[in-house]
Amino acid sequence: MIAPALLKPLAAVSLLALLAGCQATPTTELRGTGDLGVVVERATGSLAVVDTSERRILDRVEGLGDLSHASVKFSRDARYAFVFGRDGGLSRVDLLTGEITHRVIQSGNSIGGAVSQDGALVAVANYEPGGVKLFDSETLEEVADIPATWVDEKGEEQRSKVVGLVDAPGNRFVYSLFEAGEIHLIDMQGDTPEVTRFTDIGKEPYDALIGPNGRYYIAGLFGEDGLAMLDLWHPEQGVTRILPDYGRGEERLPVYKMPHLEGWTLAGDEAWLPAVGRHEVLVADSDDWSLVDRIPVHGQPIFVMRRPDERQIWVNFAHPDNDVVQVIDTESREVVATLTPGEAVLHMEFTPKGEQAWVSARDSDRVVVYDTRTLEEVARLDSESPSGIFFTDRAHRIGL
Amino acid sequence: MIAPALLKPLAAVSLLALLAGCQATPTTELRGTGDLGVVVERATGSLAVVDTSERRILDRVEGLGDLSHASVKFSRDARYAFVFGRDGGLSRVDLLTGEITHRVIQSGNSIGGAVSQDGALVAVANYEPGGVKLFDSETLEEVADIPATWVDEKGEEQRSKVVGLVDAPGNRFVYSLFEAGEIHLIDMQGDTPEVTRFTDIGKEPYDALIGPNGRYYIAGLFGEDGLAMLDLWHPEQGVTRILPDYGRGEERLPVYKMPHLEGWTLAGDEAWLPAVGRHEVLVADSDDWSLVDRIPVHGQPIFVMRRPDERQIWVNFAHPDNDVVQVIDTESREVVATLTPGEAVLHMEFTPKGEQAWVSARDSDRVVVYDTRTLEEVARLDSESPSGIFFTDRAHRIGL
Repeated sequence: MIAPALLKPLAAVSLLALLAGCQATPTTELRGTGDLGVVVERATGSLAVVDTSERRILDRVEGLGDLSHASVKFSRDARYAFVFGRDGGLSRVDLLTGEITHRVIQSGNSIGGAVSQDGALVAVANYEPGGVKLFDSETLEEVADIPATWVDEKGEEQRSKVVGLVDAPGNRFVYSLFEAGEIHLIDMQGDTPEVTRFTDIGKEPYDALIGPNGRYYIAGLFGEDGLAMLDLWHPEQGVTRILPDYGRGEERLPVYKMPHLEGWTLAGDEAWLPAVGRHEVLVADSDDWSLVDRIPVHGQPIFVMRRPDERQIWVNFAHPDNDVVQVIDTESREVVATLTPGEAVLHMEFTPKGEQAWVSARDSDRVVVYDTRTLEEVARLDSESPSGIFFTDRAHRIGL
Repeated sequence: MIAPALLKPLAAVSLLALLAGCQATPTTELRGTGDLGVVVERATGSLAVVDTSERRILDRVEGLGDLSHASVKFSRDARYAFVFGRDGGLSRVDLLTGEITHRVIQSGNSIGGAVSQDGALVAVANYEPGGVKLFDSETLEEVADIPATWVDEKGEEQRSKVVGLVDAPGNRFVYSLFEAGEIHLIDMQGDTPEVTRFTDIGKEPYDALIGPNGRYYIAGLFGEDGLAMLDLWHPEQGVTRILPDYGRGEERLPVYKMPHLEGWTLAGDEAWLPAVGRHEVLVADSDDWSLVDRIPVHGQPIFVMRRPDERQIWVNFAHPDNDVVQVIDTESREVVATLTPGEAVLHMEFTPKGEQAWVSARDSDRVVVYDTRTLEEVARLDSESPSGIFFTDRAHRIGL
């Protein structure tokens, strides 16, 4: 409050400073962050911040480096996106202001990350140098550096690429070592990370997933058939092999792209997964991991994702069949729709309660939004080379 | 930008107005809404807005009327809480500003509500007059009024209390009619609500739940034993009876409080539920609904809630045993801990990834926060007669 008596001595400069000062209060509107998400735009190294209620792009954040194969996790409060770039860049983006609050180049080449159960830590999986780094989720200050070391057949210590890093209940992280053929479990409960190693889990684990309740960690193997499973309720039992025939099998079909394991669906007591190299979606019994069914589909499946109500499975495909998305009814196990969102469909994301599915068509430079009940297109957003789509409700899901 | 030449004519009044104007920009800080929640304070008719990251009360919202047995749902963007008061009041509270943005007294007596899958509608279940009202979730303008009518044995049309209202996939709502013994399904896909009635489902349904994937709607019966189940994937098959012995059975034990069905846990292929009147938690096979196990506990269970990773079940109890919470290991099915948070424990809520459990102890005027791994108390918040605790991640879960 300024009294008239004070006005005369006020110089223009100080008055301007006064006005400038009050203009500095944030003008960005208050809003909830529960219906926000991001679309990775790989060609331009940008993120499109999207609103799933209004089905539009709110903002665009640039300067995120090489975003080919980039992935995103969210802070516990669903305000910040952590972007893991292929160039080893880790960026923290404020979805409300569109600003990059922190950015570090933390390695030469990274492949993804995870946020701890308590939200305090961000872990990054690195190819080069191979290992995991942990950062404070508010400052991106490095908290720990855990090299992925192993001893080769000559008895020499080597470092390995890290893949399939996920968060697990109990403030733990789990990941796999590609060259080593190991799974490591980090427990962050104490002051220093406690690492448990599981060796000889199989040749060249290339990706992994953890189920929705965080109990089973499953790694896919590039070097042999079958999958390696760790029961986190019983780590003392070690890693077991499941679905021994899962992989390329005897007939070495051309595999255009190894399927993503995050794309797997564990629904009730069934697991839905992409066959490797074959035009099939597989259904397995997740109690005894026996193969229950093979569903013929349009191409080599990449992501096999359930609608949140588990009544539909949406599937996208590897080149050259990647201009199509197929929808499978989980009860009849039949393809009930074939959608054509555009060229090079790379990713799909459902809204939390499943009424919409967002699909990125990279080579058509668009994101297409479908009503999952009518399977009709309800919106189309312009986006340059869109790839991964991630919504903020992932902040509240184990392993996502 | 103001040029010096303009300064001389500036009168004190206009300068003050100028300053006042810029001070009007919102001072409430921007923040994510993913780690927010509310605690219902029944005695004072207030909501405590809480932050689960900092484990503290951020704000207190008053003037919400009679909050005995009140429940809360959240808007799709996780910014607004819809509060359903026992006095028929429906309030929309802004968690960011602490303001009641809208409030309507929409009936004489209501028992809860739900938000539609697309977030556009809020439905309220009313006792008096019996029926369901639908409101626009942004304005609380009434969109539809659906009386819960039925025809009694004399052929006369009656109205019935509505209970167990939940949202279901496909923008539907499901609820039960107490006096009528019916389940009604509303489909909001079209322009006008389409109501499907299921009659003779059993005597006096008093509460209901819907599973996490939104397929099975299960109503508890006050007037007889057993439960009524509707498979929303096959409404044409009608309502079937499950767990025929569930209820008070032959020996009419004193039942201090009918257990809440929302408190049920459907985890994998098991259902964990409170026995009625008995000091037991029941485990049923959710494929064939056969009873698998009975676990002796401290008192008559009210809420039987799973930790999100499904490794623990937390149970609170009816008077006079309501000063205790017991923790059951889902694998060994044994009580592994008995906690004493305070007097009259009414509700429990887990953080989305399960690292914390918040427990309300009404007669001790506090909310106690536990670390679910160590089972140690990590925070204690002062709250006058706290009852229900609700976190915003419910905005993203079917039926919550």
